[in-house]
Amino acid sequence: MSTKYTIGVDYGTNSVRALIVDISNGDEVGTGVWNYETGEAGIHLDPNDVHLARQNPADYQKGFYESVKLALADADGIDQSQIIGIGVDTTGSTPLPIDADGIALALKPEFKGNLHAMAWLWKDHTGYAEAAEITEKAANFPYLAKCGGTYSSEWFWSKILRCKRVAPDVFAAADSWVELQDYIPAWLVGNSKPADIPRGICAAGHKALYHEDWGGLPSEEFLTTLDPALADLRGRLYSRTYTSDQPAGTLQKEHADKLGLPEGITVAVGAFDAHLGAVGSGVKPGTIVKIMGTSTCDIMIGDAFTPDIKGVCGVVPGSVVPGYMGIEAGQSAVGDLFNWLVNHFGSDHATLNEEALKLKPGESGLVALDWNNGNRTILVDPLLSGLIVGQTLHTTRAEVYRALIEATAYGSRKIIDQIESEGVKINEVIVCGGIGEKSPLTMQIYADILNRPIKTSRSAQTCALGSAIAASVAAGAHENILSAVQAMTGTKEKVYLPSVESNKTYEDLYKIYTLLHDSFGVKGTQNDLSQVMKQLIQIHKDAVK
Amino acid sequence: MSTKYTIGVDYGTNSVRALIVDISNGDEVGTGVWNYETGEAGIHLDPNDVHLARQNPADYQKGFYESVKLALADADGIDQSQIIGIGVDTTGSTPLPIDADGIALALKPEFKGNLHAMAWLWKDHTGYAEAAEITEKAANFPYLAKCGGTYSSEWFWSKILRCKRVAPDVFAAADSWVELQDYIPAWLVGNSKPADIPRGICAAGHKALYHEDWGGLPSEEFLTTLDPALADLRGRLYSRTYTSDQPAGTLQKEHADKLGLPEGITVAVGAFDAHLGAVGSGVKPGTIVKIMGTSTCDIMIGDAFTPDIKGVCGVVPGSVVPGYMGIEAGQSAVGDLFNWLVNHFGSDHATLNEEALKLKPGESGLVALDWNNGNRTILVDPLLSGLIVGQTLHTTRAEVYRALIEATAYGSRKIIDQIESEGVKINEVIVCGGIGEKSPLTMQIYADILNRPIKTSRSAQTCALGSAIAASVAAGAHENILSAVQAMTGTKEKVYLPSVESNKTYEDLYKIYTLLHDSFGVKGTQNDLSQVMKQLIQIHKDAVK
Repeated sequence: MSTKYTIGVDYGTNSVRALIVDISNGDEVGTGVWNYETGEAGIHLDPNDVHLARQNPADYQKGFYESVKLALADADGIDQSQIIGIGVDTTGSTPLPIDADGIALALKPEFKGNLHAMAWLWKDHTGYAEAAEITEKAANFPYLAKCGGTYSSEWFWSKILRCKRVAPDVFAAADSWVELQDYIPAWLVGNSKPADIPRGICAAGHKALYHEDWGGLPSEEFLTTLDPALADLRGRLYSRTYTSDQPAGTLQKEHADKLGLPEGITVAVGAFDAHLGAVGSGVKPGTIVKIMGTSTCDIMIGDAFTPDIKGVCGVVPGSVVPGYMGIEAGQSAVGDLFNWLVNHFGSDHATLNEEALKLKPGESGLVALDWNNGNRTILVDPLLSGLIVGQTLHTTRAEVYRALIEATAYGSRKIIDQIESEGVKINEVIVCGGIGEKSPLTMQIYADILNRPIKTSRSAQTCALGSAIAASVAAGAHENILSAVQAMTGTKEKVYLPSVESNKTYEDLYKIYTLLHDSFGVKGTQNDLSQVMKQLIQIHKDAVK
Repeated sequence: MSTKYTIGVDYGTNSVRALIVDISNGDEVGTGVWNYETGEAGIHLDPNDVHLARQNPADYQKGFYESVKLALADADGIDQSQIIGIGVDTTGSTPLPIDADGIALALKPEFKGNLHAMAWLWKDHTGYAEAAEITEKAANFPYLAKCGGTYSSEWFWSKILRCKRVAPDVFAAADSWVELQDYIPAWLVGNSKPADIPRGICAAGHKALYHEDWGGLPSEEFLTTLDPALADLRGRLYSRTYTSDQPAGTLQKEHADKLGLPEGITVAVGAFDAHLGAVGSGVKPGTIVKIMGTSTCDIMIGDAFTPDIKGVCGVVPGSVVPGYMGIEAGQSAVGDLFNWLVNHFGSDHATLNEEALKLKPGESGLVALDWNNGNRTILVDPLLSGLIVGQTLHTTRAEVYRALIEATAYGSRKIIDQIESEGVKINEVIVCGGIGEKSPLTMQIYADILNRPIKTSRSAQTCALGSAIAASVAAGAHENILSAVQAMTGTKEKVYLPSVESNKTYEDLYKIYTLLHDSFGVKGTQNDLSQVMKQLIQIHKDAVK
């Protein structure tokens, strides 16, 4: 049998990456990255509004061709006729307004340069007031139980409601709205009309309050409380969704010809980058995948009986692997927190890693909260901030650096504890992202604090790999996502095992973290914090003796 | 009338300074500084015990001659026969063991190089366990009410008890113990025998639990609970004390001849540097003097009815100005806290001052606790540590720097509030020390947070000036300390006035500081801290709008 390939296309915040993968074993035979060419590193900003972040759909279309071209060139020597499918993952929630033909409004002359007609990038927070309003008005509806109890300014409805209020002309011109994860596959297969677009469950379930329990999208009654125009829009959105192991359709001749790909190959239904990143990292029941970057996204799958989990961003059937509940959680600042210290207080990661590695758990006498960018899970509160306690006149930068790493691990532990408290067992952790490769220190601290083995993903391009896996299943070459994962993914040889002794110290420190977490993060708790500093001194003494 | 002079001699931690002063107006006509020549910058350390800090009495004696010689040379052209007195101030509590002739044991061949036979420098903390024991055993006695309720490891009895336990040979060879503030005047006037040494009330009252209410030093009954040998020592210490406006005696010919000074001039009773520094800064009723350096000492005087003040290091009759209660409080780290940021997190004071000056009160969104070196007043707890809250990913080093300055000002405000709560009014603040000159930013922040005008002392050598003032009164040239202060001290023209607007913001921040202060510093308080971070964000927003 000749070697067969799929292409995974991963739309990131600043660039798009294409990866060509051997579907028999996951070998990555070619890759190409293309940086968006408009905006600042691909993002259109408003100097008067720090919350605004938009993207130009033209970059998405050109990015598809350019990245795939580069990947094909890189995969010199493969037989292109053996490419059997394409999968797509994107950032999200990144919705964009489209007309009745599925054309992005931003591509039409009358909206050229109009920021509100562009794609509303995931990190656009202009809808923060709308998000609060949605959370408040949803109190009498069941919708928020599936997404942690709080609706975010990053999500679908906040953005659309915001658009209606600040750019009624754009809102009025939009026949429908589509998530970027669905816009690309629909365009590739030629099913661009709003009613025809195959919508993926991932964005629908995690960001748009879509659930079968209440018949799909939120009711007209609820949407009317926000704005009657949203209730009207509901009918022009969608009433069913698909998982990413299903085909969205077949590649149109127009695109195939441009790239020299076989016409009519399968294009899979799209999903978010983190979710397909988890697939590319080797997700399976009992394993949580941490996509660690500037922030962290935690993805895992639970069985069909997985309940709603308070504070967790979403529990959505099939959003990661069909037949399983997709569970998404996250931390707003991880790499960003370490970068903050380096950028504002001098030194560099390599030096700080080296120095912090010499410290024992507890030696610094410090505990920090990892909230410099708010708390996404489990408190779902963007208005929380950072805290460090335990400093003496001898506290060093490396000690603070280590304390910040530990803080993010405690934050991760809170997420794991919360998920496990609802009966979903977590036996091991797979980390993907640069930190896993660059900082063995961080991995060992995570192993010691999470008290579980930490593995790192074999691939450095897990999102694109996950898309290629989805494509291989949608094209019928693998039976299902889990069997494809088995064949096409792996972890590196090095496994970080928890140290019993370190974990013991960290359990004490985690109690202090929890006390601070609850005191500063949860209204109505009453804790006596007067022994915190003394406990840290005692833990320090025990660490160095 | 010809111009008359006194000499103030100020024994610091690393050097001794002599200052020759015109007693009619406080003009400083000559100064000399001599660095101690043994130990590390004058301090004898033990590489195996970070708590140990001792000094060599030989440095004290040589330092007197050398510093005065330099000052006389500097005061070229004055008529040395018009020098009418010498005053002495020193660090403390810095006790040293002496034999029956008043000879420091460390100067005797059999104890050469023995660290325990040297002077136990104020910052020696080897007696921390003994301090805790004294505090515990004093629970049924009245002694601690005058010194804030907690006995310190820096103080007289902790050190002597420690010596008895770790160096019984030294303890046995000591006929008596003497504070450095008393050792020098006694040596200069030839009254060195233990029973003859004129003991100053300052060290006795603030550090040795001496008070007329209970007949002088603590009772034999109490001392026996610590060690019967201490009860025995009590009889070889002292049963009366003197104020520093009184003569200790007259300068011995031996010393006068060495320096070309008139024989028989008055030597005043000694006192601590901070207390005479307050005198040299212009202390008067209603004015608190802050001697700001690496740490801060707060000195003020209250009337005869001043009650005991919980948490304040001492309320001692006559320790600053005869006829008034001397009140001493302090903060363990002030300049040291700012140095910590500079030394461990890069940058320099000038740059950080410049950048922090551009920030508005509340703009940083940060609040810190100033406890990196514990809390001296009002919590009297060396095991407290630092805390910073409110960081985002954009928080800068200058913002942290400003937050640390503000934290020390809130700590100062706590002291002032505590003193005022006992009925002692504080109308203005005089700052002496380098920070007052180098950092107008710090002075303005203090004015805004203390909500009182801040003046800075005219003299840069207020401790030595205070000693010279004491000498002028002891020699009969001024009627009393306050009239001498009036004649011989002053403040600089620039007065830092509180801004109403800044104070308003700082009152809100001070409430948050108080919440943190009580939650982390006081056992048994129950506070909900969940709104702290949100309040800081609101204060930030108000500050920049």
